[in-house]
Amino acid sequence: MTYDIIVKNCWVFNSFLKKFVFNDVAIKDGKFAYIASNIDSESAKIIDGNNAYMIPGLIDIHMHIESSMSIPNCFAYSVLPWGTTTVVADPHEIANVAGKEGILFFLSQKTPLDIYYGIPSSVPATNPDLETTGGIIGIDEVKDLLDDPRIVCLGEVMNFHDVCYKPDSLSANIIKICKEKRFQMPLEGHCPKIDGEKLQNFLFQGISADHTHQTYKSVYEKITNGMFLEIQRKSMTQDVIDCLMENNFYEYFCFVTDDVMADKLRYGHLNELVALAIKMGMPKEMAIYCATFTPARRMHLEDRGAIVPGRIADFILLKDIDNFKIDKVYKRGIDVSTLNYEQAINIPNKFLNTLHCKKANIEDFKIKIEGNKALCNIMAIEPHSTFTTHQQRWLNIKDGILDKDDLVMITIFERYGKSNDIAHGLVANAIKESGAIASSWAHDHHNVLVLGTDYEDMVIAQNELLKMQGGIVVVKDHKIIAKCILEIGGIVSSRLIEELGKDLENVREAIKELGYEHDNEIMSIATLSLLVSPALKISDKGLVLTKEQKIINLVEEVR
Amino acid sequence: MTYDIIVKNCWVFNSFLKKFVFNDVAIKDGKFAYIASNIDSESAKIIDGNNAYMIPGLIDIHMHIESSMSIPNCFAYSVLPWGTTTVVADPHEIANVAGKEGILFFLSQKTPLDIYYGIPSSVPATNPDLETTGGIIGIDEVKDLLDDPRIVCLGEVMNFHDVCYKPDSLSANIIKICKEKRFQMPLEGHCPKIDGEKLQNFLFQGISADHTHQTYKSVYEKITNGMFLEIQRKSMTQDVIDCLMENNFYEYFCFVTDDVMADKLRYGHLNELVALAIKMGMPKEMAIYCATFTPARRMHLEDRGAIVPGRIADFILLKDIDNFKIDKVYKRGIDVSTLNYEQAINIPNKFLNTLHCKKANIEDFKIKIEGNKALCNIMAIEPHSTFTTHQQRWLNIKDGILDKDDLVMITIFERYGKSNDIAHGLVANAIKESGAIASSWAHDHHNVLVLGTDYEDMVIAQNELLKMQGGIVVVKDHKIIAKCILEIGGIVSSRLIEELGKDLENVREAIKELGYEHDNEIMSIATLSLLVSPALKISDKGLVLTKEQKIINLVEEVR
Repeated sequence: MTYDIIVKNCWVFNSFLKKFVFNDVAIKDGKFAYIASNIDSESAKIIDGNNAYMIPGLIDIHMHIESSMSIPNCFAYSVLPWGTTTVVADPHEIANVAGKEGILFFLSQKTPLDIYYGIPSSVPATNPDLETTGGIIGIDEVKDLLDDPRIVCLGEVMNFHDVCYKPDSLSANIIKICKEKRFQMPLEGHCPKIDGEKLQNFLFQGISADHTHQTYKSVYEKITNGMFLEIQRKSMTQDVIDCLMENNFYEYFCFVTDDVMADKLRYGHLNELVALAIKMGMPKEMAIYCATFTPARRMHLEDRGAIVPGRIADFILLKDIDNFKIDKVYKRGIDVSTLNYEQAINIPNKFLNTLHCKKANIEDFKIKIEGNKALCNIMAIEPHSTFTTHQQRWLNIKDGILDKDDLVMITIFERYGKSNDIAHGLVANAIKESGAIASSWAHDHHNVLVLGTDYEDMVIAQNELLKMQGGIVVVKDHKIIAKCILEIGGIVSSRLIEELGKDLENVREAIKELGYEHDNEIMSIATLSLLVSPALKISDKGLVLTKEQKIINLVEEVR
Repeated sequence: MTYDIIVKNCWVFNSFLKKFVFNDVAIKDGKFAYIASNIDSESAKIIDGNNAYMIPGLIDIHMHIESSMSIPNCFAYSVLPWGTTTVVADPHEIANVAGKEGILFFLSQKTPLDIYYGIPSSVPATNPDLETTGGIIGIDEVKDLLDDPRIVCLGEVMNFHDVCYKPDSLSANIIKICKEKRFQMPLEGHCPKIDGEKLQNFLFQGISADHTHQTYKSVYEKITNGMFLEIQRKSMTQDVIDCLMENNFYEYFCFVTDDVMADKLRYGHLNELVALAIKMGMPKEMAIYCATFTPARRMHLEDRGAIVPGRIADFILLKDIDNFKIDKVYKRGIDVSTLNYEQAINIPNKFLNTLHCKKANIEDFKIKIEGNKALCNIMAIEPHSTFTTHQQRWLNIKDGILDKDDLVMITIFERYGKSNDIAHGLVANAIKESGAIASSWAHDHHNVLVLGTDYEDMVIAQNELLKMQGGIVVVKDHKIIAKCILEIGGIVSSRLIEELGKDLENVREAIKELGYEHDNEIMSIATLSLLVSPALKISDKGLVLTKEQKIINLVEEVR
């Protein structure tokens, strides 16, 4: 056999021995073909590894491309340099905005990165009585999607209660149809803080992975009950890493990114988690194994994830492996730095100009009410999580208008042209300065969310957002101080991550300038409308008590 | 949640900790549902484990049901008591006899054992110029079979040379169509004694498992090059077991049975390999893991292979675990000793009366030839393998008939009614006494094979075999001394293994009585016609040099 490329003089990672072996690696047709010492082939191109470490490309099996605010085509070029060569994406957000059509739009994009998909299992996250979305993924959509071989799993099943105790629910029926049509396909779960018999009831349904926040106890309980764990950065605490190491759980977990936004993506991706794991004391061989071999096996993508003959020639060269500093990345044997970026400019019209709500005026933000004072339900932001707490407070009524005092007004405009509903809420611990933020990147329903202390600024922000037809706008002192355009479905962009990331960074800085204090300001704002996370959230239908899945009024009582 | 069954007071094997934990196990709808200490449920049936060990049901992912000379329905009841609760069968023999129809006949049988299938990749083993078979599995048949979800792999790909170096060959095209239609499906290989660059060339094609005879060196080389190894009994030498243990290769291999005949099946199945591994020094936890968890994962059957919620409730109870003595076996929570055997009596007519060759007379066995002596090509049987060596010898010609001297005559009658060819050969080291054996269980083409020292006995044996329409007959001193009827396709029976095994044991003893000396007499005779095993074999087309894949004459030269 003749070979196309020979990578010479490398410490090649052997996933089965879990050690590095000094070898040459021959590549043919984009696959590893022959690994031995001193391979000679006259016709082959030579890459001199020069004693570098050679490891398989990283594989990220739980992530959302929309978190990068990008589309697959652009996303691909942003993560390849970080060594991520395969992802399994859950297109949950584009499905909320554009349904099956949105997923097919993602699937249609050819990228040098290999992107496989999970079927979003909770679109909408709740139900049409609680939130208006652009699309619904029901049984028929799931059936159709299961015919596509790039679908490799059912995406994170969230609705624990429906799955376990309501056999007629949509979630339960989606699981049923997956088992019928593709009984070997992995079913991914989302089960934070569920343990004991409840956890086992969830697993009983056939769900066998979780990627949510873990502790020592949850890792131990979930893995010993047969779950495959997908460890994301927020779970990388010393006790979790110790649990994985002490119990030799290396075969039963992998690292995943879940959500990495455009601004952060400019500095790293899954590689950062591998570096962190090594820094936290995990042997580098095992950290690499769990970012390459175990994720591939979990998703039945055994055509990759190791440097052995027959597997796809995705690999990384590194000199400083202890700090996991990536020098070169190769996708199917091709140096990714030589790839010509082909921007997806042909965005179908149906995914553009998708914000179908009225232009706001100042009256839209005033809550008209008769009386002296009103007892209001308030969403209080927590600075380190996407949770809110539910509080109540008496507010004054002045000239028939509710005085929000030091609180922040939040208004949702239904934007799919279905009901044109407008809903109001009040937020504590959000922006402190005078100003406003408008966003159509608002999980999961992605209606138009406007947050502000100044009504005029809110009008300016909302109007600008409609002009942009998607994205995030920050207004202070009646001036637009930052914006990030997300022109596709109002949630993603076809611009390069470099440019997009810079805009997003500006937006983030501007939000901070308004006095918003949070570990992740943008995610915090976006999840004020996420109806599956505690405790009080908001949609176009109004305030929702998320545990009870019940709409409540902003004003509880008037005196 | 309420449960159907609670197994109490067991040392339950946890596949993830690789240790036993004292617990109760609740079962619902045939699946494990809840594992905890002291589970109470009023309505549940209680099984008191009484401090027994509880392990998952055994999973055998490389085996041929036809080796048991049985059909799936009967086979199922014979292996369940030995703890085998799932198999992946390669229906290679029934496909040789009856093509895709034969495979569909196997697939159509409902059994309490879960049987998944591989697509036989080499039917015929060589090509129609070298052997006549009843069926061919070509591209169209593979395409059709890939639509069935019970097909979980491509069965052992044997033709190393075609796969690696002939992209237009049937083998190469079968692999191609599998990758196109089911890119995640495992491709199983058969590559004895192939190593170095050739082995890697084979793996390059996407084949990633081997179940043939291994040594320390082959295990190390194959696993570190990414192969999953399926260890059968003949590979269970101390050096192989040591290699697996020393290198901590437990995640990359499993135990398989490959071929277990009806007589042997009465005494055990995959359980014997687990017992042997423990006896040879493998920790019992790891031996169990590699007969349950790793085979399930290899075949993407992650709905079984561990005692955790959501997996199928197949399990075994044992008191004496060090000797691996099985006390009770449960399939989907049901004690297999309580299963009512439903014999498959409705065998479609097309699979009966399938021996379409002429009734032999004594002239059929005489080789007529002019001259004084003839240089003949002879197949010499090796007593410890299925190989023959190719020898040559001068034999006398008496009255125009070749005198076979102390050699044994072998005659093949084409039996599919296609050519009605008759081919002759001579065998050394076969039966020593006067007598004959006739068999239609003759790998892989399963034409009628008659072996004998006495022509009259050969006639009696052949005629009796036609009367039986399949099986094996042994004749001595003009009397039938043993027979085993295989009435379906001439290779399998619907009788119970108990009865079938007794007949086969009698046949085996009768063959020994004729002076046949071999580790496995029946397999030795049957593989005299196996054209993919060294060195000189025979089909209805004549003698075949198997390495060269070339027909040669019995008589090389006459003087």
